Amino acid sequence: MANELETQLPSVRQVQDLIKAGSEVEVKLSTTDLLVGKLRWQDNYCLCLLDHYDQPTIIWKQAIVYVKPKS
Amino acid sequence: MANELETQLPSVRQVQDLIKAGSEVEVKLSTTDLLVGKLRWQDNYCLCLLDHYDQPTIIWKQAIVYVKPKS
Amino acid sequence: MANELETQLPSVRQVQDLIKAGSEVEVKLSTTDLLVGKLRWQDNYCLCLLDHYDQPTIIWKQAIVYVKPKS
Amino acid sequence: MANELETQLPSVRQVQDLIKAGSEVEVKLSTTDLLVGKLRWQDNYCLCLLDHYDQPTIIWKQAIVYVKPKS
Amino acid sequence: MANELETQLPSVRQVQDLIKAGSEVEVKLSTTDLLVGKLRWQDNYCLCLLDHYDQPTIIWKQAIVYVKPKS
Amino acid sequence: MANELETQLPSVRQVQDLIKAGSEVEVKLSTTDLLVGKLRWQDNYCLCLLDHYDQPTIIWKQAIVYVKPKS
Repeated sequence: MANELETQLPSVRQVQDLIKAGSEVEVKLSTTDLLVGKLRWQDNYCLCLLDHYDQPTIIWKQAIVYVKPKS
Repeated sequence: MANELETQLPSVRQVQDLIKAGSEVEVKLSTTDLLVGKLRWQDNYCLCLLDHYDQPTIIWKQAIVYVKPKS
Repeated sequence: MANELETQLPSVRQVQDLIKAGSEVEVKLSTTDLLVGKLRWQDNYCLCLLDHYDQPTIIWKQAIVYVKPKS
Repeated sequence: MANELETQLPSVRQVQDLIKAGSEVEVKLSTTDLLVGKLRWQDNYCLCLLDHYDQPTIIWKQAIVYVKPKS
Repeated sequence: MANELETQLPSVRQVQDLIKAGSEVEVKLSTTDLLVGKLRWQDNYCLCLLDHYDQPTIIWKQAIVYVKPKS
Repeated sequence: MANELETQLPSVRQVQDLIKAGSEVEVKLSTTDLLVGKLRWQDNYCLCLLDHYDQPTIIWKQAIVYVKPKS
């Protein structure tokens, strides 16, 4: 199906790995905001990030500049 | 049809859940504006947000950075 | 045809309703500009807004953040 | 062909009209720059604007916010 | 092939002309940076610009606002 | 497959060359951030950049303005 995740792509797989690892990541956004939290899921359009209170933020991939493990 | 909502996607479903719940959300936009209100509907291009006076704002999805339940 | 307006979509229809109503709207743009006027037409790429002197502005949809009735 | 101009669209036609009229237009860009000049041609990706010295600027449509007759 | 340059388009051809001419151009970017140099090649996604030390910069077309001959 | 890298494109190949060379590059982002490091891999959506501590940053191509060898 057209909207299935392309799980053979490195970028998709690495995000999946970050979801499974449950470790903290930094997500830089086009607005220059930097969100910190744990990734819970992704689909073709969005990533879901949980903050320190386990509150979900649905981030549109179109607005993502980079994702990196929290240093 | 090409323009039907892909309701099997988590991001689409979670927005649908937020619409049904009728609770307040924060919508961060590419202009860095943060709008607060209740989601009324979505299609492939837009979300509709009702402010405190029930006035609708048609938000283009292309401009959305993130959506989260109002904290 | 590929470039016909998808008039069954809520967002397209609501913009059509705003065109027919002829009432004033606010259009927020990615540059953070806020234009005020009456919508005259839309196609898949653009909206046309008439200012107070009936001068047309062709706005690219890609630059639209939101549209709302003027409060 | 896929890359032919969709000349039945109002936005494409109105830009064609502005090219034929040879009158001055203002082009607002995503960087917030406002360019003034005469439109010479368009294709699916770009507009060409001539400044007061008849020097051409190739503007990517992706960066256009709006086009309006110079007031 | 889908990723061949659409060389019949005016915008693609004019960039090819600027490459052949080897004259200096100004490239305005979405970050508001203005790069100056000579164009060396283009494909569907990128332009390559050589600076005064002949160092290449690979510019993503998605980030281009305009290209003009250096005045 | 639709999501295979188009390795015949100059831009894709030059990024591959930069990955193989293992030399430092500068990546300018839409947020105006400038990241410095070594490229490790690319796919259609992302580039992976290693910083001086070999920490990976997954950069979305949509946010890239330019890539150049570190001067």
